[in-house]
Amino acid sequence: MRAKVILPDSEIPKMWYNIQADLTKLPDPPLDPETGELVKAEKLLAIFPPFLIEQEVSLERWIPIPEEVLKIYLSWRPTPLIRAVNFETLLNTKCRIYYKYEGLSPAGSHKPNTAIAQAYYNKKAGIKRLTTETGAGQWGSALCLGAMFFGIEATVYMVRVSYNQKPYRRFLMETWGGKVIPSPSRNTASGRAILESDPDSPGSLGIAISEAIEEAISRDDTNYCLGSVLNHVLLHQTIIGLEAKKQMEMIGEYPDIIIGCCGGGSNLAGISFPFIFDKIAGRNVRIIATEPTVCPTLTKGVYTYDFGDTSMLTPLLKMYTVGHDFIPPGIYAGGLRYHGDAPLVSLLYNEGIIEAVAYQQTEIFDASMKFIRSEGIIPAPESSHAIKAVIDECRLADEEGKEKVILFNLSGHGLFDLSAYDAYLSGTLEDFIYPEEKIKESIARLEYLNKCRQ
Amino acid sequence: MRAKVILPDSEIPKMWYNIQADLTKLPDPPLDPETGELVKAEKLLAIFPPFLIEQEVSLERWIPIPEEVLKIYLSWRPTPLIRAVNFETLLNTKCRIYYKYEGLSPAGSHKPNTAIAQAYYNKKAGIKRLTTETGAGQWGSALCLGAMFFGIEATVYMVRVSYNQKPYRRFLMETWGGKVIPSPSRNTASGRAILESDPDSPGSLGIAISEAIEEAISRDDTNYCLGSVLNHVLLHQTIIGLEAKKQMEMIGEYPDIIIGCCGGGSNLAGISFPFIFDKIAGRNVRIIATEPTVCPTLTKGVYTYDFGDTSMLTPLLKMYTVGHDFIPPGIYAGGLRYHGDAPLVSLLYNEGIIEAVAYQQTEIFDASMKFIRSEGIIPAPESSHAIKAVIDECRLADEEGKEKVILFNLSGHGLFDLSAYDAYLSGTLEDFIYPEEKIKESIARLEYLNKCRQ
Repeated sequence: MRAKVILPDSEIPKMWYNIQADLTKLPDPPLDPETGELVKAEKLLAIFPPFLIEQEVSLERWIPIPEEVLKIYLSWRPTPLIRAVNFETLLNTKCRIYYKYEGLSPAGSHKPNTAIAQAYYNKKAGIKRLTTETGAGQWGSALCLGAMFFGIEATVYMVRVSYNQKPYRRFLMETWGGKVIPSPSRNTASGRAILESDPDSPGSLGIAISEAIEEAISRDDTNYCLGSVLNHVLLHQTIIGLEAKKQMEMIGEYPDIIIGCCGGGSNLAGISFPFIFDKIAGRNVRIIATEPTVCPTLTKGVYTYDFGDTSMLTPLLKMYTVGHDFIPPGIYAGGLRYHGDAPLVSLLYNEGIIEAVAYQQTEIFDASMKFIRSEGIIPAPESSHAIKAVIDECRLADEEGKEKVILFNLSGHGLFDLSAYDAYLSGTLEDFIYPEEKIKESIARLEYLNKCRQ
Repeated sequence: MRAKVILPDSEIPKMWYNIQADLTKLPDPPLDPETGELVKAEKLLAIFPPFLIEQEVSLERWIPIPEEVLKIYLSWRPTPLIRAVNFETLLNTKCRIYYKYEGLSPAGSHKPNTAIAQAYYNKKAGIKRLTTETGAGQWGSALCLGAMFFGIEATVYMVRVSYNQKPYRRFLMETWGGKVIPSPSRNTASGRAILESDPDSPGSLGIAISEAIEEAISRDDTNYCLGSVLNHVLLHQTIIGLEAKKQMEMIGEYPDIIIGCCGGGSNLAGISFPFIFDKIAGRNVRIIATEPTVCPTLTKGVYTYDFGDTSMLTPLLKMYTVGHDFIPPGIYAGGLRYHGDAPLVSLLYNEGIIEAVAYQQTEIFDASMKFIRSEGIIPAPESSHAIKAVIDECRLADEEGKEKVILFNLSGHGLFDLSAYDAYLSGTLEDFIYPEEKIKESIARLEYLNKCRQ
């Protein structure tokens, strides 16, 4: 029989794991871009509820998951840990490959793990409306789902070009009761300013963030939510790794290598942080972040303070970045087109605890197709980056004659990305040239800015 | 905590339940339309493998599920039985509502339960290629998945208008390695004949069936597969009800009412037949089939011999039918637009063991939206027909002061049907007038045909 490891509902982790409790060196704190000083709590309180700000800076190792959040988690969690037996056979490897399948959530990815929690804490703080931005719609749909469960309104600023080209995720958000606004919009000053200079602006994630934050700042009953990068977001995702750890224990396994794709870093953090707990204590386990060649934040970026958005509205975060004004080519893995990385992931990479590797678009679809044709599940293009690394690590281990245990996060399904697979199958999928010059320029501008600030 | 009942992998049923073993009256046998006699085995052997023909007529109560099929089932089965706590709260009902969620299969519906089995038996019979037809693509994608697992080619004739309008399910089939051909095509004599008289023919399920069967008959290495209606298809789906029965037993529950939508009848049969086993033995349980008002096979059809396809190629089946040449209006629940019903479901309805009810399109979307906004999962429009009946039965029970246990089959997710939800939300979803005259005419033509045959 196939090895699918099911954790009983009663065994679902009751606490999130806060890696900050175990770091010998904490990430440098966020800075206020206007003053260059630490960001004041009042500024954050304008858009986040106190509970999440507390979690952002907490040094408690274990943070209880509220009962109300657990109840909703339990409608699809614990997610299965699956041994990819057919994939192993196809690869002809002696390694044992396991994946944690997060595509079974109603939104089809790991994003609801934090969306549900954020909606809960905002509800508890008396908030009536949430705003956020979304590109392809993966995060926006998770937030609409979370808000719906707690009876909060959700307004999602969706990059206009995606709004027009990808109606399905918009329909999904609306079906869950969300309000979806193509960005730039006339709702906000930021949006109006853009439209004045460019009435046909296709929008960008940066503009959408600006609009969502502006709306949250301007209304007392409204807060803003972010789907990755921040400490509390990564915290909520640790449910993935905590479950995986219990599941591997159930079958007497422990991973030699853990692999996740890395855009902002939340799904990689989610699966790996509970194992990094062991690694800090001396256990031998490799963690690999996979990213696209065309947005090589960890592999080619610099470790410095940068804005979280392109419009320079957010606090400055110390992170690996290719510069906030770098716009990556339009690869299908939209979720990996972020210019920076979570401060916690960045710190761990800088400390050598996490490794990173970058891949081209066609090679990740080659890898994904091998997985699909053996396992049946269609991965999101983002998650396919992890699969490419799995194949490479298996080959390496086989060459060295080692039987490794590899765990990867299949962070979401690709049912809304089938046009990408169609492009691959019909031979029209292309690799983009590594935009070396543009990244150099963007980093140079950032370093100049940072120098001026000091 | 939310009541989600997980059956351990080790407890997955190892045998399908064959209801034919327990019927006091068997369904009337299929007839050869040319001779009016019983269909000869040779004719069936031209398109089906011997194992499936044996299952079609078997009187054994329990039929072992092959190990190879079980292995694949186990990659997503047993599916969860979920208590719809939030939905109960929204309905303010004292009834307990449970649903079996079949949308977690890689193809997103219950269809792979039989597709995997059919691919396996065909592989065992040395078959290299499978053909089938598909409308919206739900069944076609399941068969491509099944064929892929056993290394068989799958060719799917897809109704041309769907091929053009619904590319996503086509991409899904192709991603799993299937060959998708818009029908009518130039591949077959049937297709060419249609194209000659109407080069712009949008196609129909009837034409697609004709092409798929023609290709299967004309090639020794090729067989044909059907996604519903036949006894062996319903047999394979009983895994749903067998699991549900064990799961309800685990929590000390037994359903008073079981509800499933009914197109050809396979998902209704799947969830209900194992409970009808008890009903035949005297246990009190109601089974309700739900269908669309515009294709009211059970509620307004006649119980007589009819063709399975519109082109009159298949054997004659004794079933409830609105006539093989009736073309229902284009409701979003494409899977319920079939003119007939499985002979086994028809017999049970005729004997009063199964009840039936028909609904209009807007009321099923009203019902579905209530479910979505409380439970988060987006049901396929087909499955939403079951949800409407759940709501009605709860209201009735509450009025009578009874606390009923209701079990329904959430046969598939609606992620490929989001444009239907968009139409609903934007107020453009319409009800079609019950096509009373057309159905009367179609039935009259059928009865005339049958009279001539006698």
